[in-house]
Amino acid sequence: MFKKILYPTDFSDVSKKAIDYIKQLKEGGSETVIVLHVIDQRGMRAIERYASANSVEIEQRIMDDTKQELKIIEDELKKSGFKVKTMIQRGVPLLEILKAEEEEDISVMVIGSHGKTNLEEIFLGSVSEKVARRCKSPVLIIKR
Amino acid sequence: MFKKILYPTDFSDVSKKAIDYIKQLKEGGSETVIVLHVIDQRGMRAIERYASANSVEIEQRIMDDTKQELKIIEDELKKSGFKVKTMIQRGVPLLEILKAEEEEDISVMVIGSHGKTNLEEIFLGSVSEKVARRCKSPVLIIKR
Repeated sequence: MFKKILYPTDFSDVSKKAIDYIKQLKEGGSETVIVLHVIDQRGMRAIERYASANSVEIEQRIMDDTKQELKIIEDELKKSGFKVKTMIQRGVPLLEILKAEEEEDISVMVIGSHGKTNLEEIFLGSVSEKVARRCKSPVLIIKR
Repeated sequence: MFKKILYPTDFSDVSKKAIDYIKQLKEGGSETVIVLHVIDQRGMRAIERYASANSVEIEQRIMDDTKQELKIIEDELKKSGFKVKTMIQRGVPLLEILKAEEEEDISVMVIGSHGKTNLEEIFLGSVSEKVARRCKSPVLIIKR
């Protein structure tokens, strides 16, 4: 029922808070966590446009940072006895999260209520709200 | 972390499906479930207006049905080892749910994604969406 967790994270504080709840779900029968980070392609396009001189370098730095953040989460969850799979996708976060949900045949999603892009979310609604509306799996939303 | 669950229910199918998830949370450390049903006061006003002759009788019947439904849920959860508290409130579901959340100092809310009033929700958004946006606790939304 909580066997395979999809945990989309943008490494925000509330997103990190979700890890404690995931650990607690271990007792409820969770075995595997898929940790997904989406590199927002819209942000990347802006970088390409305005910082074209070294966009490759910037992309590389983003990728390195992402891998490092994911590694920390992976280690922490493994220490709690989970099987962990990390995923990095490029695209629109909402769509990539829904795609992973479908492809990975998950039991439950655990997600932070708000991401890092706070101002945008006030006007357009948070990614987690949209995910919760459109996903098929049960979703546990962790609040700030 | 999942110790005290608030479970608002309108007795819809998806709401009943949530009970299985609540049971599974038992292993994750849940002890108490507060089962809340809100009698929508807007519906009651319509009854009073159009069926005034025997509105008292209708209200009584609604109350009896509600108690009976709650009793079934209470028994099922008690059988799984939970402490159970049932609550019947009159008012606007969203507001009563948020009130109970605050007053009962809960750890997590478990709620069905859609209620019985399906058509209304398509246009106005579901109660659970609004609850998830405005509550302070983590909320587990169970989908159809």
